[in-house]
Amino acid sequence: MIRIADFITKAAFEGPKRAAVSFEGLTLTWAELERRCWAIASAFRDLGVGKGERIAYLGQNSHRQFEAYLWPTRIGAILVPLNYRLSIAELIECVADCTPRVLVVDRHFVEEARAIADACTSIDVLVYADDGEVPAGMESYEALLDDAGAPDIRALDALASSGDDTMILFYTSGSEGKPKGVMLSHAGLFINVLGQAPAYGWSSDDIFLLSGPMFHLGAGSRVFAALVNAGHMVIVEKFDPVLVMQVIQTHRITSVTFVPTMLSMIMNHPDYDPHNLSTLRLICYGAAPMPIGLIERAVAELPHARFGQSYGMTETSPVLTILGPEHHDPAGEHPERLKSVGQPLVYSDLRIVDENDRPLGPGETGEIVIRGPQVMNGYWNQPERTAEALRGGYYHTGDAGYLDEDGYLYLAGRVKEMIISGGENVYPIETENALSKHPAVAECAVIGLPHEKWGEAVHAVVRLKTDGAASEQDLIDHCRALIAHYKCPLEITFRDELMPLSPTNKVLKSVLREQILARVT
Amino acid sequence: MIRIADFITKAAFEGPKRAAVSFEGLTLTWAELERRCWAIASAFRDLGVGKGERIAYLGQNSHRQFEAYLWPTRIGAILVPLNYRLSIAELIECVADCTPRVLVVDRHFVEEARAIADACTSIDVLVYADDGEVPAGMESYEALLDDAGAPDIRALDALASSGDDTMILFYTSGSEGKPKGVMLSHAGLFINVLGQAPAYGWSSDDIFLLSGPMFHLGAGSRVFAALVNAGHMVIVEKFDPVLVMQVIQTHRITSVTFVPTMLSMIMNHPDYDPHNLSTLRLICYGAAPMPIGLIERAVAELPHARFGQSYGMTETSPVLTILGPEHHDPAGEHPERLKSVGQPLVYSDLRIVDENDRPLGPGETGEIVIRGPQVMNGYWNQPERTAEALRGGYYHTGDAGYLDEDGYLYLAGRVKEMIISGGENVYPIETENALSKHPAVAECAVIGLPHEKWGEAVHAVVRLKTDGAASEQDLIDHCRALIAHYKCPLEITFRDELMPLSPTNKVLKSVLREQILARVT
Repeated sequence: MIRIADFITKAAFEGPKRAAVSFEGLTLTWAELERRCWAIASAFRDLGVGKGERIAYLGQNSHRQFEAYLWPTRIGAILVPLNYRLSIAELIECVADCTPRVLVVDRHFVEEARAIADACTSIDVLVYADDGEVPAGMESYEALLDDAGAPDIRALDALASSGDDTMILFYTSGSEGKPKGVMLSHAGLFINVLGQAPAYGWSSDDIFLLSGPMFHLGAGSRVFAALVNAGHMVIVEKFDPVLVMQVIQTHRITSVTFVPTMLSMIMNHPDYDPHNLSTLRLICYGAAPMPIGLIERAVAELPHARFGQSYGMTETSPVLTILGPEHHDPAGEHPERLKSVGQPLVYSDLRIVDENDRPLGPGETGEIVIRGPQVMNGYWNQPERTAEALRGGYYHTGDAGYLDEDGYLYLAGRVKEMIISGGENVYPIETENALSKHPAVAECAVIGLPHEKWGEAVHAVVRLKTDGAASEQDLIDHCRALIAHYKCPLEITFRDELMPLSPTNKVLKSVLREQILARVT
Repeated sequence: MIRIADFITKAAFEGPKRAAVSFEGLTLTWAELERRCWAIASAFRDLGVGKGERIAYLGQNSHRQFEAYLWPTRIGAILVPLNYRLSIAELIECVADCTPRVLVVDRHFVEEARAIADACTSIDVLVYADDGEVPAGMESYEALLDDAGAPDIRALDALASSGDDTMILFYTSGSEGKPKGVMLSHAGLFINVLGQAPAYGWSSDDIFLLSGPMFHLGAGSRVFAALVNAGHMVIVEKFDPVLVMQVIQTHRITSVTFVPTMLSMIMNHPDYDPHNLSTLRLICYGAAPMPIGLIERAVAELPHARFGQSYGMTETSPVLTILGPEHHDPAGEHPERLKSVGQPLVYSDLRIVDENDRPLGPGETGEIVIRGPQVMNGYWNQPERTAEALRGGYYHTGDAGYLDEDGYLYLAGRVKEMIISGGENVYPIETENALSKHPAVAECAVIGLPHEKWGEAVHAVVRLKTDGAASEQDLIDHCRALIAHYKCPLEITFRDELMPLSPTNKVLKSVLREQILARVT
């Protein structure tokens, strides 16, 4: 039986005076963390929070949010870390969906919390978890903790969640309809840490940096890696390249998790000096491939660091595949594997399937589906979307990709972007990859447009380099030399402006589609 | 959510034609194993075996017992592998305890099965799982399988057990009272495999040998190691040194699990030739330490093999600690660690406690207790013994031992053998270790005898070498130079005969105690 919070007890027994978590000036030992977590769990039980109830948390990264990942499980409650980048209306939608009675908030979001509490009748307690004066009408986290006294551990034990019980809910923004609360279990989160261990070799000597937002599991999952290995977790409120460089040096950080942009921001900063990063032993990255130039530079300048790429999502606790350190040598035997996201964790049954859920063979692109212990329990309160996502026992990622003969996974965009032209499936990324190899092309994006004969037509939007020249036919001929005819653009729209981008720097194809359709009609 | 049998599906998808299990002349591919397991599960459901029901199995090792580890979970049933070395009366006691409706039997135990069925009213179906003619009044396993047709996988899925559900029951002989049915879960068995992975580095290229009896988890646990890694399992009916050497050579076995006696029997056999064992990559052993001379020889003669020791028991699914390959170099930095059983798996909260469950420090000997995901669900139908064994949330192993400063565990016999003399705890093994360092001592055993002043007295039974000479005082003085006075024998009984031994070659201290007490009074 797995109970995540038991790892606090284990670490506090083995090394009570070792550092567990640091935030700004503060460091808590494992013994202190254990005492605080038991006490605050006990206090929340006395507030009337019952087994299976949700506790919402709205705040920037802190040691208190780290604690909140763990102690609610002691009373069988479920944490809901809220994404503070959402609008108030969106936050209200999440809270209205999971109906917590308690909302915990830090000093940055006091007004937002009040607005949410006004709109959501389920909330009857606001808890202020921060330093400084406690706002009117709120309970103080630290006062609750101090007043809790010695908790009755046996009584709490009877309430604790475990195993396949849901312990945390992350809301993922729904591009289709209302947000989905992803229900994750003790077992799924724990086993996902164990599954990464052979590649990353963590130990209790590791000092982890958490610099991504804890309302996302991408960053938050490192809480469990540090916990299970009894390592030391150092938290920064939010990512800033200078702050992160200082913290790495001060705390002698060994293990970091970045998105490639973060590493690029650090290595291109005027204050960057490789010597200040010399304690790094492991640099994990995800959410996007690492540009080959950045890898080459990092390998050369940070010789003590190894690199690992993880591919995953909230619904899979989160890791599906790992491209291990042995594949991060650009001069190695298989440099092409740096374009993959690696191989599935040993226990994952990962497949590529077509639109009828029939398995595809090596090299064939389709939807990535997975069955394994790390798959979510489902979406909170949404049995139909859960059944749809888990149909046939496999979680459907919505990501397109293919496996090579050796089982390395290559991503190919979202399944929804797939174009069906003349009965053939075309993934825009394949056409885009071909187009971008033409020397005159600066940027391109491929979409499907309605077509009388073919159902959908492959349509490319291209911006040429200022000194580049190529006709529509030139580019089509260029593609025909590289990929199957049905994957080549039938038509090309040229534009001079930059592509419209989302806040996460993805091309907004929906905008392109609207612009082109408006022009056509 | 973990479902052990899902790994069959995964392996059958990834390598349908790869070998899954071999037994005598037969090899089943993963696709064949999957088909057989689904069909037989379906047939047993049609026999009326319901969710949570037990299925007893009495037979020697075979591919069918391998299958039986897995398919009952598909219909939520619980396998009970029976120890065929037990007497009929003992077997009846186990079966009467877990009340299965179905007993599966092979050709070796047909009469025993009939006797059990006569005595146990719960049993109304006997299934014959072997080649050859089906005995009268029994169902045929193979006929059931052939007649099952294509199973309704969706219907079976709704019955399958998972996660913390009990999937297998092993009876352990009770030295105190009736046998105990140890309830083990999907999660515990699976996580125990993952926990061993960093030390043993198994992969789908591994070819495992199973030569110990499958009614014990010590051997049986390798079913799960082979399964999770999609390796090939080769099974022999029972251990025989010549057969095992042949099978290792024929099947190019890479991974074996032995008790040290087995390895010694092989390496001291006239037919032994190191070249025939050259495919071995990993030799795991357990249940006893490996004599240093044997390790030295094996390291020299089998340079391709690495060695790993596991310490465990049925109640812990089964592994608690591993002494990894890096510690099996007698010329290495820490040769003394070869006397330990290694370090706890990363997720185990292993402690040494005194008789009042208070934790002890490094070097202090007490009872080994553990909390972790691999701990059993409890003893079947015995809530009081379960509560006693799991008191305070920790499984009490009954084994005595101590941890050194670096967290290596050293065993010191059974807690029940502990002598309390003048308020001090004495573990006989410490006294025995001191005595056996005297050049005249051939064999020794230390027990506690009632004593008016001290409560118990440390009493040694010693057999001297035929050419050895030492007085009682000589030996006591020898011990006093090595260990604390209260740990030294107060009295010594000399004997000329060999020590009385149990079938597993342990000194029968109860017999010694009776002999001495009979003589004293």
